Amino acid sequence: MRLSSLLFLVCFFTVAMSQCAAAAKARHFRWEVSNMFWSPDCEEKVVIGINGQFPGPTIRAKAGDTIVVHLKNGLHTEGVVIHWHGIRQFGTPWADGTASISQCAINPEETFTYRFVVDKPGTYFYHGHYGMQRAAGLYGSLIVDVADGDEEPFKYDGEINLLLSDWYHESIYTQMVGLSSNPFRWIGEPQSLLINGRGQFNCSLAAAHTPGAKQCAAAGNRHCAPVILPVLPNKTYRLRVASTTSLASLNLAVGNHKLTVVEADGNYVEPFAVDDIDIYSGDSYSVLLTTDQDTSANYWVSVGVRGRQPRTAPALAVLNYRPNRASRLPAAAPPATPAWDDFARSKAFTYRILGRAGVTPPPPATSDRRIELLNTQNRMGGGHVKWSINNVSMVLPATPYLGSLKMGLRSALPSAARPSDTFGRGYDVMRPPANPNTTVGDNVYVLAHNATVDVVLQNANALARNVSEVHPWHLHGHDFWVLGYGDGAFRGDAGDAAALNLRNPPLRNTAVIFPYGWTAIRFVADNPGVWAFHCHIEPHLHMGMGVIFAEAVDRVSELPKAAVSCGATATALMAGAGGHV
Amino acid sequence: MRLSSLLFLVCFFTVAMSQCAAAAKARHFRWEVSNMFWSPDCEEKVVIGINGQFPGPTIRAKAGDTIVVHLKNGLHTEGVVIHWHGIRQFGTPWADGTASISQCAINPEETFTYRFVVDKPGTYFYHGHYGMQRAAGLYGSLIVDVADGDEEPFKYDGEINLLLSDWYHESIYTQMVGLSSNPFRWIGEPQSLLINGRGQFNCSLAAAHTPGAKQCAAAGNRHCAPVILPVLPNKTYRLRVASTTSLASLNLAVGNHKLTVVEADGNYVEPFAVDDIDIYSGDSYSVLLTTDQDTSANYWVSVGVRGRQPRTAPALAVLNYRPNRASRLPAAAPPATPAWDDFARSKAFTYRILGRAGVTPPPPATSDRRIELLNTQNRMGGGHVKWSINNVSMVLPATPYLGSLKMGLRSALPSAARPSDTFGRGYDVMRPPANPNTTVGDNVYVLAHNATVDVVLQNANALARNVSEVHPWHLHGHDFWVLGYGDGAFRGDAGDAAALNLRNPPLRNTAVIFPYGWTAIRFVADNPGVWAFHCHIEPHLHMGMGVIFAEAVDRVSELPKAAVSCGATATALMAGAGGHV
Repeated sequence: MRLSSLLFLVCFFTVAMSQCAAAAKARHFRWEVSNMFWSPDCEEKVVIGINGQFPGPTIRAKAGDTIVVHLKNGLHTEGVVIHWHGIRQFGTPWADGTASISQCAINPEETFTYRFVVDKPGTYFYHGHYGMQRAAGLYGSLIVDVADGDEEPFKYDGEINLLLSDWYHESIYTQMVGLSSNPFRWIGEPQSLLINGRGQFNCSLAAAHTPGAKQCAAAGNRHCAPVILPVLPNKTYRLRVASTTSLASLNLAVGNHKLTVVEADGNYVEPFAVDDIDIYSGDSYSVLLTTDQDTSANYWVSVGVRGRQPRTAPALAVLNYRPNRASRLPAAAPPATPAWDDFARSKAFTYRILGRAGVTPPPPATSDRRIELLNTQNRMGGGHVKWSINNVSMVLPATPYLGSLKMGLRSALPSAARPSDTFGRGYDVMRPPANPNTTVGDNVYVLAHNATVDVVLQNANALARNVSEVHPWHLHGHDFWVLGYGDGAFRGDAGDAAALNLRNPPLRNTAVIFPYGWTAIRFVADNPGVWAFHCHIEPHLHMGMGVIFAEAVDRVSELPKAAVSCGATATALMAGAGGHV
Repeated sequence: MRLSSLLFLVCFFTVAMSQCAAAAKARHFRWEVSNMFWSPDCEEKVVIGINGQFPGPTIRAKAGDTIVVHLKNGLHTEGVVIHWHGIRQFGTPWADGTASISQCAINPEETFTYRFVVDKPGTYFYHGHYGMQRAAGLYGSLIVDVADGDEEPFKYDGEINLLLSDWYHESIYTQMVGLSSNPFRWIGEPQSLLINGRGQFNCSLAAAHTPGAKQCAAAGNRHCAPVILPVLPNKTYRLRVASTTSLASLNLAVGNHKLTVVEADGNYVEPFAVDDIDIYSGDSYSVLLTTDQDTSANYWVSVGVRGRQPRTAPALAVLNYRPNRASRLPAAAPPATPAWDDFARSKAFTYRILGRAGVTPPPPATSDRRIELLNTQNRMGGGHVKWSINNVSMVLPATPYLGSLKMGLRSALPSAARPSDTFGRGYDVMRPPANPNTTVGDNVYVLAHNATVDVVLQNANALARNVSEVHPWHLHGHDFWVLGYGDGAFRGDAGDAAALNLRNPPLRNTAVIFPYGWTAIRFVADNPGVWAFHCHIEPHLHMGMGVIFAEAVDRVSELPKAAVSCGATATALMAGAGGHV
């Protein structure tokens, strides 16, 4: 068990007396999820909001606090859950908010209570994790400050929070039907990018610098009013930037200003300065920005698309040097997003992210198991397009794993065969799959308690020639060390495995695989529960791009009844009652 | 207990040996509900289909058969149920298919088995009964023939089945948000009318007779291809006509042909001949048509809107006298739908529907209880528009009543006050409500076992002056006698009550109230269970227009676990298990 987990558990179990618990606080929230009309990019559609807001309310807490969210489902016929992205849920795996995995979806008009400790300061967010509800707008920020008396390993004078997303005008229902149809219908590129839930479709705040664009009308207090970020000159700001996009990989830059990266996914990293940062879906960063430029001007914050040929205009916000008027748009052109396919640049940025010296713990020197996961695009039943891992596309069960595995229900694992720890050595990652047929399966990997596990994510060519996509993989319940990246096929013990960075790798919960490349991560299976590990691109997960890690489920303490009151677990428990209804 | 119920129970409980049971058959169906792309009126949208079909498959059975439908929910995040409209569910109230009332909604990927006896021949249908899923296309026909050896009290040579519906291009999600929003957004009139799931938007099959319309292109085998009804000359056909519209009241006519009404809602009626029939949502009829016209021509079947100012073009089908080519469109103009607001004509038609002499049993001569239900449109919280019954707008609970009442859970009835059997005598039904404020409540009426109950449905003015709408009320679990209709306020014992028709009223499951009028029905509470009674207009029900009848729930036999595996019933049963999860 790592030190941080240990400290956390000490606090947790001695809650009445310990120093840490005395400072910690329970923070209660009453939320209701419902569909509502909203115009995030000036075009109205039905979005999923919380308490009538989009994005949902920001949770702000201190490390060690207990968050208690009483979540009422106000949707009419749909279940709902909320995943607390980046929170490891030590001791509370049923609060991870993953339908079919950690809990039964909350039925309409029901209330489920999420109760969990935010043990580690950092920039997090939350979002729906059922169907494609995240893409319908079910998300918000979760910011954890250091505990009282603790200090961040860097200084700043103020904060700016930027939750980034992409936005489709088509409903998620239509999107899901298309993805499941034969012939397959891809959702296409998003219509808009949003900053804190606001964007501008079909117009630009910087039309003068955007050929063919028309200037957005003054939006006043509309949902799509420009995001204004007031700052004072000659101060240092911490920009917290997180991406909950459905599809898009993003890049963020601030005109004339350098950015110093200091945090990634709730973990400190060795500071480094850049002109812009890449942010994949599921990533979060903190960057420091000093307002040391001409104080008579305002500056653009620009967010554009990378990794896929963009058909979506950049999102813009205004860094407003006070006392300049907020409405005074920057005269300069917004920073240009780097070429979408300049992957060398993306890699250069990503490779610079390393554990912070003296702060980030090093990984265990050796691992107990290596799981190699081949990412391919496949076809099933002739026309259904799927993403597959080692040639099996993940499907989720009606009864969530955490309950069914803990209760030892035979129905828990639909497929008899356990998934493979590796794939055929001869696989040519540079070409479309020779045999593109796939099957579906549960993709449940059972991990030994406290085992140190390496996972090598191997990218490959998709169904079409000369196409290999970016996939940001997100792990629930853990941070992992990113030990290395490479191009082409991972060469295993003979080559790449020996060259991994065991000295100062960063800790993260999301790691990207580049086209035709591989990424190696290491983590300790020290968190009893059932955890999803999946591509954070919403339609890719919907198409089966994920696996499940089941860890020491026998060590999980009693599950809340509400987490198991569906499917086979409910049936088994009600049968146990023996009584007649 | 009425004779038919008694006979049915004899069959039911002596299934192994009796004559009736020997002839009866169990008919098994495996259905999967899913969202899919479909173009019912040539415009594509996402519809709810069954086994890839829209409308769902037709069930055909014989009286006394047991229907077994294994219904898998293939939706991604939504629950689902199916109501078997007109089937009384004697002994199987948990199979009535009403979410929040008779069962827990079936979760995604789960399968629920509906098993029930169709005890009475007739023209029925089935449809979703959760949120507004019916309006998304979740419906189909259920036809019950007489048992072997029995005969219908009329003769015919062939059958034609016409399931009528209306169609919106807006998704039900958007519709539901609008209905729940403040300011309120009404769904408007439907874009198309459908016959057997087919219609033509923005064009006409009879453009030559329709000023401004363009002729529909040949649709070939598209979803919106015209409905062709092949017949032979000089035969008598039974047209089975049912309406599952979301909003529209309909009228059906066949060019040059008389229609003889012989059945309404699965009950025989005294035959009468008309040029056209009105069909409200929830109604079903059988009419006899004799193909005694010029055999060289085909004829239009025309379905138009009544009761609301129509903004929807009539639906057309072709009565194809063989051997004429089906593609030969009738030269004559389609029959014109009567004026939408000719309510005198509507009443004249409705009043002619009477029990069939010698077949339809008479009602009990007296009743044990009279419940008077005032139908008003109200406002809640300043801007939410609701429909209310005796000034309470119905809301449904998270835990279905059948389970919670049977288990005696205190949470079963959210509002402490029982709803009233009457409303203020002085209420002026001709004006907008003097106090338009409403509250929400459960509207649960507890009925004594075998009590004879009269219900007087009293219509009134809506929120706007000079507006009073048609509402077709549908009762689950029972047929009722329609004892009378009248204009203005029901005058009770002093007047109207004495003039009710106790001699030959028709048995039905759906009865309309006309603008500013009242309708009186009588039924025997001989079916233990919990039954909805509501306006069959989908958005009106969604806005609270209904009540619940709870009958002798203690006499209901053991409920299937799957019907109670949600909410408070699941929690209570799991707690009964005592064990730890």
